Amino acid sequence: MARLAAAIAMLIAFAQPALAEDGYDLWLRYRPLPADRASALAARAGAVETDEASDPTIAAAVAELQRALPSMTGGGPEQQGGVILIGTTRSRRIAALGLEPAGEDGFIIRDVTANGRRLLVIAGNRPVGALYGAFHFLRLVQQGPLPAKLDIAEKPRVKLRLLNHWDNLDRTVERGYSGQSIWDWWKLPTATDPRYTDYARANASLGINGAVLNNVNAKPDSLTPQWIAKAAKVADVLRPYGIRVYLSARWSAPVELKQTATADPLDPAVAAWWRAKADEIYRAIPDFGGFLVKANSEGQPGPQDYKRSHAEGANMLAAAVRPHGGIVMWRAFVYSEVDPDDRAKQAYSEFKPLDGKFADNVIVQVKNGAIDFQPREPFHPLFGAMPKTPLMLEVQITKEYLGFATHLAYLATMWAEVLEADTFARGKGSTVAKVIDGSLEGHALTGMAGVANIGSDRNWSGSIFDQANWYAFGRLAWNPDLTPVEIAREWAQQTFTPDPGFVDPTVAMMLESRQAVVDYMTPMGLAHLMATGHHYGPGPWVGDLARPEWNPTYYHRADKGGIGFDRTRSGSDAVAQYARPVARRFADRRTVGDDFLLWFHHVGWDERMASGRTLWEEMVARYDRGVAAVEGMNRRWAMLGPLIDKERADQIASFLVIQKEEAIWWRDASLAYFGSVSGRKLPAGVRPPAHDLQYYEAIRHPYAPGHH
Amino acid sequence: MARLAAAIAMLIAFAQPALAEDGYDLWLRYRPLPADRASALAARAGAVETDEASDPTIAAAVAELQRALPSMTGGGPEQQGGVILIGTTRSRRIAALGLEPAGEDGFIIRDVTANGRRLLVIAGNRPVGALYGAFHFLRLVQQGPLPAKLDIAEKPRVKLRLLNHWDNLDRTVERGYSGQSIWDWWKLPTATDPRYTDYARANASLGINGAVLNNVNAKPDSLTPQWIAKAAKVADVLRPYGIRVYLSARWSAPVELKQTATADPLDPAVAAWWRAKADEIYRAIPDFGGFLVKANSEGQPGPQDYKRSHAEGANMLAAAVRPHGGIVMWRAFVYSEVDPDDRAKQAYSEFKPLDGKFADNVIVQVKNGAIDFQPREPFHPLFGAMPKTPLMLEVQITKEYLGFATHLAYLATMWAEVLEADTFARGKGSTVAKVIDGSLEGHALTGMAGVANIGSDRNWSGSIFDQANWYAFGRLAWNPDLTPVEIAREWAQQTFTPDPGFVDPTVAMMLESRQAVVDYMTPMGLAHLMATGHHYGPGPWVGDLARPEWNPTYYHRADKGGIGFDRTRSGSDAVAQYARPVARRFADRRTVGDDFLLWFHHVGWDERMASGRTLWEEMVARYDRGVAAVEGMNRRWAMLGPLIDKERADQIASFLVIQKEEAIWWRDASLAYFGSVSGRKLPAGVRPPAHDLQYYEAIRHPYAPGHH
Repeated sequence: MARLAAAIAMLIAFAQPALAEDGYDLWLRYRPLPADRASALAARAGAVETDEASDPTIAAAVAELQRALPSMTGGGPEQQGGVILIGTTRSRRIAALGLEPAGEDGFIIRDVTANGRRLLVIAGNRPVGALYGAFHFLRLVQQGPLPAKLDIAEKPRVKLRLLNHWDNLDRTVERGYSGQSIWDWWKLPTATDPRYTDYARANASLGINGAVLNNVNAKPDSLTPQWIAKAAKVADVLRPYGIRVYLSARWSAPVELKQTATADPLDPAVAAWWRAKADEIYRAIPDFGGFLVKANSEGQPGPQDYKRSHAEGANMLAAAVRPHGGIVMWRAFVYSEVDPDDRAKQAYSEFKPLDGKFADNVIVQVKNGAIDFQPREPFHPLFGAMPKTPLMLEVQITKEYLGFATHLAYLATMWAEVLEADTFARGKGSTVAKVIDGSLEGHALTGMAGVANIGSDRNWSGSIFDQANWYAFGRLAWNPDLTPVEIAREWAQQTFTPDPGFVDPTVAMMLESRQAVVDYMTPMGLAHLMATGHHYGPGPWVGDLARPEWNPTYYHRADKGGIGFDRTRSGSDAVAQYARPVARRFADRRTVGDDFLLWFHHVGWDERMASGRTLWEEMVARYDRGVAAVEGMNRRWAMLGPLIDKERADQIASFLVIQKEEAIWWRDASLAYFGSVSGRKLPAGVRPPAHDLQYYEAIRHPYAPGHH
Repeated sequence: MARLAAAIAMLIAFAQPALAEDGYDLWLRYRPLPADRASALAARAGAVETDEASDPTIAAAVAELQRALPSMTGGGPEQQGGVILIGTTRSRRIAALGLEPAGEDGFIIRDVTANGRRLLVIAGNRPVGALYGAFHFLRLVQQGPLPAKLDIAEKPRVKLRLLNHWDNLDRTVERGYSGQSIWDWWKLPTATDPRYTDYARANASLGINGAVLNNVNAKPDSLTPQWIAKAAKVADVLRPYGIRVYLSARWSAPVELKQTATADPLDPAVAAWWRAKADEIYRAIPDFGGFLVKANSEGQPGPQDYKRSHAEGANMLAAAVRPHGGIVMWRAFVYSEVDPDDRAKQAYSEFKPLDGKFADNVIVQVKNGAIDFQPREPFHPLFGAMPKTPLMLEVQITKEYLGFATHLAYLATMWAEVLEADTFARGKGSTVAKVIDGSLEGHALTGMAGVANIGSDRNWSGSIFDQANWYAFGRLAWNPDLTPVEIAREWAQQTFTPDPGFVDPTVAMMLESRQAVVDYMTPMGLAHLMATGHHYGPGPWVGDLARPEWNPTYYHRADKGGIGFDRTRSGSDAVAQYARPVARRFADRRTVGDDFLLWFHHVGWDERMASGRTLWEEMVARYDRGVAAVEGMNRRWAMLGPLIDKERADQIASFLVIQKEEAIWWRDASLAYFGSVSGRKLPAGVRPPAHDLQYYEAIRHPYAPGHH
């Protein structure tokens, strides 16, 4: 019967409620293992023991193991295998084993036999070390079969491993593309959210040990009793996971709160206000980390308003938190509203003379590059240039300039590029990594900060692949020498599956992704060509904004003859801010390399590149290469998606489509514009832009996210 | 050994991954039933058959049954019980049964025997009827044991059952307290979200059949091709669930988009623009529902800007959508920026003279009361006053004036109060329900709209109990005669557990909750005493805002002698807008009742109430009663919470604490203020406010949500 053939007969058989694969679980998925791995794991880690269960951090570690192991083993009652012993060297059983974990935060994972029992010991000097060890163990378990014998010792290379939340008090997030702030300020402190705990778990799994809760463009309100109570409640939730809370401080807060007449850092009333404020904060948050300050930058107030230096400002604040063991992180991201000098030079010019003038609980926070989180920038010239001052690296996890949440751009390659960069400050091998881990100059106060991409979106980061950037930041802060491929691999194994048939091509796609963005947005050392304000989409034609350095035309300097910013001696001489060998390399067109060519040089359109193409032809090729890479990612994902759950695969697929559309938009708009400026025609066989320049110039996005 | 006693030994046994009880599943939880009910269900509904699987709506119904039944029965392969046959009367097998579902959207659920097979038939005339029947069946299953034989026939009483989303294009939500807009406009139309489908499922489960996607304070952009494509994509997702998409239209859009010189509705170019725009929308959304318009109200543009009437404006738009079967919903929420007359009178004054002048595809949308969604208002005088015009009721599900997301306030009691209210328009029994279901005047175009409380929060509505308001709106739109207790009961049974030990006291708490809010915010007919702008917290002292009707003092009119707004003949005579018997009742202090006393009368502080107390004493007693009710809810929840999952119980508990704190704030601030105005002392034994009036007046909440 034709009719019956069309009938659906549903048999209620073996149906299991599917776990929603919406990305919420991040890399802490703990899905059931294949039978062989499950029983091997159960035999080795069938139970967890500790002698320090009353410690909240040890309790958190035990809870994580309890959450993870049964879920992965599918453990039935028959399993009575080996035992995990977790704790610190202060516990008698662990002390008896003679283990010596390294430092405050390090851990050891080792198979031992004690009193005839086989134990898998996870031990730290402090509880947080044991917690990190537990997460490390679970990472290994999720990555594939464990070695027969584990003997691992790890410790972090950097002391401050911090997220910077640019979260506003109204729950918007500046440059946030993953929903609202996860901090539901409005309901705090009375109501918290289970999500705060999951946030802490995810961070602890990477070793992240601090969070600046509010935007560096700070409001004075965040320092009022009402808001301190909210921050204190968050701190209570994060504390067991070894995460300290920090606050961004608005320089002029005491004035705006009508409690002082001035914010002059040398005014005793101002210093007293901050001391009292610090005392008040520490009463509510005994382990408060300290303040992050953006001062005299982009309209924010600061000590220069009173003709005081950044050091004078930072040191006044540092004195307020010193009695409590707090620190001040002072941002070097400054450029003047009036200084006509190359913006790329200004932070160095301002801070270099202050080297040695900061208090010892101040650390200067320096962005990876001298402009502002562009798809590619040379390393910031301050690295290596302030030997007497601890410098921490600030990177941007949220993709303000790299396509927001929908473009796949794995950023570990970008950050590794900077960490590996050689400043030559003390000769060859003086990498940025050695500057920020303190080893180059012997600093104990070291740090790395990432501007978070975390929000209220169910998947936390706006997309599944953006989770990898959160992950990579945490792993690099733990160990700046980890390679992007290692990190991508372990992330993909945990987040999706250890199946190499999936992992290998996915990792390959991740590794090429950021270069693709560079190619279709800002190839060959171009920078800051994004549209105004929201930084979404191309705007290389914009040249009419009030301040010169707001304009893309300021950065690319294209004209009929050529393109690029001359930063050699014949131009702004920004190259002189680098150590001699570096400066020489950047200043010479033959050695600077294609990646930074137009960052440092103004080059004629018809000059020949290493490839044999003219500059114009090379730029066209780069744009085309970027688009082709994204088209390739779309094709590859069509094969890879079916290997994982449909829900995440579909989201990734649709975002890749958006990325493809927008890569084409970037390429077409940029070629239309630069073609019109240069007067050069597209090489034969190159696809012309789909529309004329006027079309691209007319595009507006008044409702772009992340811009307030 | 003492040490060992402290050790945790975790046995990996019987551990199951717990389903996250974060509220996402709403009332569609489908958790496993107890064994007896599970096997009874499997025996009766062990499989699903349809002859119309190619219909997307029937497919959605089948999918819902497939999702729900195995989950509830825990169905193993041994079950081979009865069969559900679902479809429309157009299918041969169902037609053969001679079932006659009512109307376009009605359904029948019946146990039958056909060709010797026992079938549970779910049938509609249209696929959407069958879908509604499937959800109705699942509702019954979740509520408790099914009757031995089902024979149910249902149909909706109201044609348009619509959610109004006040969602902005930047994803903020005006008066939204549950996160961002669920519409991720930025990623549409390329990427959708599985959440859109779950939204559609939840709405279809209630019979909601339309959604106005964007804020009534509309932007012209929403009518551009870019945004029409986004709305079309949402429409594609919602369509299988019987939900049509509507858009709020900004009156001046063609001018602001620079496509016409005027927005005069009688200008042929304007009419042509809207006709072309409607054609364009219908090409993208063939079943587009039509436009919702807020015109000449609170700064929005409208036809009066051109000296045309609301009817002339509405009819021009109506002509544009008529060829496509679309409608126009024209809001009667208007009050003039210059008219000094009682704001409560203005909508009636404007619209009553227009009765009979609207095109037949226009429906006028009237709020439940004449001011603005206050905790209690008398029914709007327009109901019953425009017999020649279809009127739809607009209620506010989001709790702009009732404590935002954290206060438990079950609103079915409020809405039922209005629906049951007798307008006496055609004599006794002329209830508002009969006005809006069309039965009083014989209108076929009928409707009920609820301003949605849905957002990106994981629990959709900002709190678990706010889900009940979404639910209650949908159920009342389906059948305005359902009682608040019936609705609360079925919601609680599905959302938590059918256990009467939990359900009965929970329902009791819900039923008293809205009166508690009235008591601690605006007792005895007071209204609009909230703080400025965001409407959060008390602001009865505010009297300095530019327009008189923005000020709480305008509404309460308290002075040394008394309090209340005289709306009798000696005052604004707003009572005269009601039918004679109603007007007489409201105008007479002896019959108006305590609930509306101060809405209609200015009363001396020392006048005696029915209780024997003076007005002042009675007000104090009401404030105290409100606080006591919330304290009682806190105590009750301490008993009830442990009967459900910890995650939801904890969230509810913490929100009840917030509600208690804020009820006390409202009571204390109000008594401090009215005590100072009246010069009356608190009765003996009454707790004085915790702070002085100055303290309450100084409180500011610049970061309150929902206000843009």
